[in-house]
Amino acid sequence: MKKITIAQINPTIGDFEGNYELITQAINQANTAHSDIIIFPGMVISGTPTKDLLRYADFRQQAKETLSRVARYAQDKLTVVLGDVDYAGAANAHFYPAAFWLADGEIQFTARQKKLNDEDIYADSKYFTAGAGAVLVEWQGKQVYLVCGNDFLLSDQPNQKVDLVINPVAIPFTKDIVESNRQTVKTWANRLQATIVQCNQVGAQTDIIFPGMSCVVGPTGAIFKELKTFEQDIITCDWDEVIDFSGTDRGRSAQDSIAWIHDALILGIRDYFAKNNFKKAIVGLSGGVDSALVLALAVEAIGAENVFSVLMPSQFSSDHSVSDAEDLLKRLQSSFTTVPIQNAFQAFEDTLAEDFKGLPADVTEENLQARIRGVYLMAFANKLGYILLNTTNRSEAAVGYGTLYGDTNGALGVIGDLFKTEVYALCAYINREQEIIPRHILTKAPSAELRPGQKDSDSLPDYETLDRILRFYLEEYKSLEEIVQEGFDPSLVSKTLRLSRRAEFKRHQTPPYLRVSRHAFGDGRQMPIVAKS
Amino acid sequence: MKKITIAQINPTIGDFEGNYELITQAINQANTAHSDIIIFPGMVISGTPTKDLLRYADFRQQAKETLSRVARYAQDKLTVVLGDVDYAGAANAHFYPAAFWLADGEIQFTARQKKLNDEDIYADSKYFTAGAGAVLVEWQGKQVYLVCGNDFLLSDQPNQKVDLVINPVAIPFTKDIVESNRQTVKTWANRLQATIVQCNQVGAQTDIIFPGMSCVVGPTGAIFKELKTFEQDIITCDWDEVIDFSGTDRGRSAQDSIAWIHDALILGIRDYFAKNNFKKAIVGLSGGVDSALVLALAVEAIGAENVFSVLMPSQFSSDHSVSDAEDLLKRLQSSFTTVPIQNAFQAFEDTLAEDFKGLPADVTEENLQARIRGVYLMAFANKLGYILLNTTNRSEAAVGYGTLYGDTNGALGVIGDLFKTEVYALCAYINREQEIIPRHILTKAPSAELRPGQKDSDSLPDYETLDRILRFYLEEYKSLEEIVQEGFDPSLVSKTLRLSRRAEFKRHQTPPYLRVSRHAFGDGRQMPIVAKS
Repeated sequence: MKKITIAQINPTIGDFEGNYELITQAINQANTAHSDIIIFPGMVISGTPTKDLLRYADFRQQAKETLSRVARYAQDKLTVVLGDVDYAGAANAHFYPAAFWLADGEIQFTARQKKLNDEDIYADSKYFTAGAGAVLVEWQGKQVYLVCGNDFLLSDQPNQKVDLVINPVAIPFTKDIVESNRQTVKTWANRLQATIVQCNQVGAQTDIIFPGMSCVVGPTGAIFKELKTFEQDIITCDWDEVIDFSGTDRGRSAQDSIAWIHDALILGIRDYFAKNNFKKAIVGLSGGVDSALVLALAVEAIGAENVFSVLMPSQFSSDHSVSDAEDLLKRLQSSFTTVPIQNAFQAFEDTLAEDFKGLPADVTEENLQARIRGVYLMAFANKLGYILLNTTNRSEAAVGYGTLYGDTNGALGVIGDLFKTEVYALCAYINREQEIIPRHILTKAPSAELRPGQKDSDSLPDYETLDRILRFYLEEYKSLEEIVQEGFDPSLVSKTLRLSRRAEFKRHQTPPYLRVSRHAFGDGRQMPIVAKS
Repeated sequence: MKKITIAQINPTIGDFEGNYELITQAINQANTAHSDIIIFPGMVISGTPTKDLLRYADFRQQAKETLSRVARYAQDKLTVVLGDVDYAGAANAHFYPAAFWLADGEIQFTARQKKLNDEDIYADSKYFTAGAGAVLVEWQGKQVYLVCGNDFLLSDQPNQKVDLVINPVAIPFTKDIVESNRQTVKTWANRLQATIVQCNQVGAQTDIIFPGMSCVVGPTGAIFKELKTFEQDIITCDWDEVIDFSGTDRGRSAQDSIAWIHDALILGIRDYFAKNNFKKAIVGLSGGVDSALVLALAVEAIGAENVFSVLMPSQFSSDHSVSDAEDLLKRLQSSFTTVPIQNAFQAFEDTLAEDFKGLPADVTEENLQARIRGVYLMAFANKLGYILLNTTNRSEAAVGYGTLYGDTNGALGVIGDLFKTEVYALCAYINREQEIIPRHILTKAPSAELRPGQKDSDSLPDYETLDRILRFYLEEYKSLEEIVQEGFDPSLVSKTLRLSRRAEFKRHQTPPYLRVSRHAFGDGRQMPIVAKS
């Protein structure tokens, strides 16, 4: 009885030794289970996105050697299918994304990807050459169609009936990908009348998060098996059962995207620390909802003992900002210190008094407070060797509501791709069984507390409205007129878009934000800084 | 007697009204000179790079309308050739870079670019579809070959003899492009036995600087005329003289690239301010060579009266750091203020004393000083409405020698693409006729002055060596082993590359640096942040 293993593993970009270990361990596990073939994700030897690392000869050389080592290791054990880069030409200077079929100690078949992707965060054409596409492999008397990456999205079909499609991929998470990718695979299985085994990467590479969710879909389009979400997972199945599956759909039931987002962010934080060999995080806790959420996520991801909070009240801080923060910390059993910013603020004011004489107080003094907090956080991070987590949300980032070199500080933006309304939804999700984030944090009016009685709504539309406008603008690329046609006040839309364009220079200096959307800030949205529009 | 006008103008991205004004003014000027045809640069209606602005329907619509308006404006005056985007398909959703031939009030010919560019800062495939390439136009009994952008670099040749090639382009400056582009045009003119008129953009779009340097090269490969460098320039020539030119080369004599770099940076600063409607700049002046150079360039670009310096000495500052800075300011007749950082530093130290009790002084205290300076500079910038210029050089940026949220602050990095050795070379160039930058600033050992007696050479190799290693690593993508083979100490190369990789996270939060190199930090070099390599 033939068996097939699907190994949804978590490589690290450029960590050839570590990735080789992961791959060979999975091979051993498959071997122990008497499996005949093992399927890995795409780009599993190099990790992805490799970007300009590909331009270095030693990187290419190591990738090639590691591929050969895997082929040799698997010899006499089983057949291996995986994706990585296929190098060709002098000095390996031509690159093709490819799926490899390794048997008898060597590469027996190579399917070079035909459809390159330059959408959103992708820039395949900067690096890769398009190949000839899928290849047919006869194995165990069956016709196996080896398809690299998103070549499914071509309308090409094989010239003959195939029994099985093997598809190593590296498809990052976005909040709408889970359903759409499942539908693509189901549609194609049905169209080809063949089982599809799609093996996806799991794990985060800085801001890009791979969800796993590998799947086996039978010839009728019914799901035979779905692998774990946001976790490594290695399963072995009966070959004939996979190929001949005609039962009812076994797909996991649909769930709200906020649950996926939660799991994605947890993995994003966890892998950022694990892959960098970092241990501890630091968070500036304001008493507001954004930092509360970041702290709750960090505690879940790396443990309460590894997260340290700093409270930095000023004379404009409300009493509840401190008491709410302390309440949260108690619930999470996480440690903190309190550093009033008053003395530093006064020192700056004193030194600047002469230069600023006669000039009225303005946004300068508000920014000064935010920047002093940023300096304190970085001092703690430097002294204790902790990593500062950034607490900016996508709505703020979109309109530039936040102080550059203050609020924008941090190594990793945990919720930078979540609209403010999604921040609240995620808090509600975290509180679904017990009140982890104190209710008062979720019900009070958002405020930066940089001047007496300040509210976010003094400068911004209510977040429900703002986020709807921003979705049209950022995710659907609708222009002013088109958004107004959706039923918004023209002056409000105009103001929002103007704020967003003017904040472009800030967004070019912010940390990477864990990505959960198409066209997230960062590589997903690239805009000129100086432009009239 | 027919005449031809070449209009090397400076558009702004997305400023359709302003660009239309520039274009129609040039048309008027050509008309006054009785010209029959006017040649503009590539992407002259929209500006470039447009990036994701192209995804907005209103942007596309305005670009199309402006093109039509130009065609109508020129009707009954003269023929117009220019480059912009050719939109096709439903909702104008397919984009081709194109050169347009406008006559009789409409687009008569369109040459869609055949060779897309995804190298370096380019990402054409993210946006554009490749077209069919150059087109032949018969005009005034002559065969005119209309070539868009870099289609020259294809080996395609026209099927018949052409008399004239018209080539609207937008080729940004790099320190090696001047000679190489001139050679390309000369080679092609000679190969085609035809005169080439290449019209390039001039002006800066944030960090990308277009040098102008449009040219007319005769059929023998000899230069008939070169337009101004880094300035708008509109010239009118005799059509027959241009087509039949067989005289000796009239190209300007070669000059050291540091002179081009100087002119590029001046234009870069000037356009950043002009296109943003900013008036005044602020610089943190340390007494060191980097900030001295930035100040000198800023004064030249926007005038001494528009640049304000802040001196921020600490107890570790040498006497000469203040006296050298004051000497420079006197020579430049530029105003400044002095803000000691001691009080703010003490306030931070006092507040942190308990939390940091028993922990030794380390890089935290050094970073604290740099960040306090960053806070002061931003306070002045905010209060006075000035724009902070960043003074980081490329060597520092490469190895992460500088404090994030301190030294890295600023809206625009003036010398971020200059190696430290180029910083000195540019200072020498500025001082070529008189001592503008005090000699002592150029002869003393570089120091961050963050602890007693500190020198850059404590942490870094000498800059001559460092810069040579960095050139191999950053500009030629040589790997460790290949650089060692060039004759460097292996441990030094290894340390340099390790520092560079570890500084990736900092470079993702720095301002745009005015670009003078291939593969400059920013869009020109894209590396993963978390990676093992």
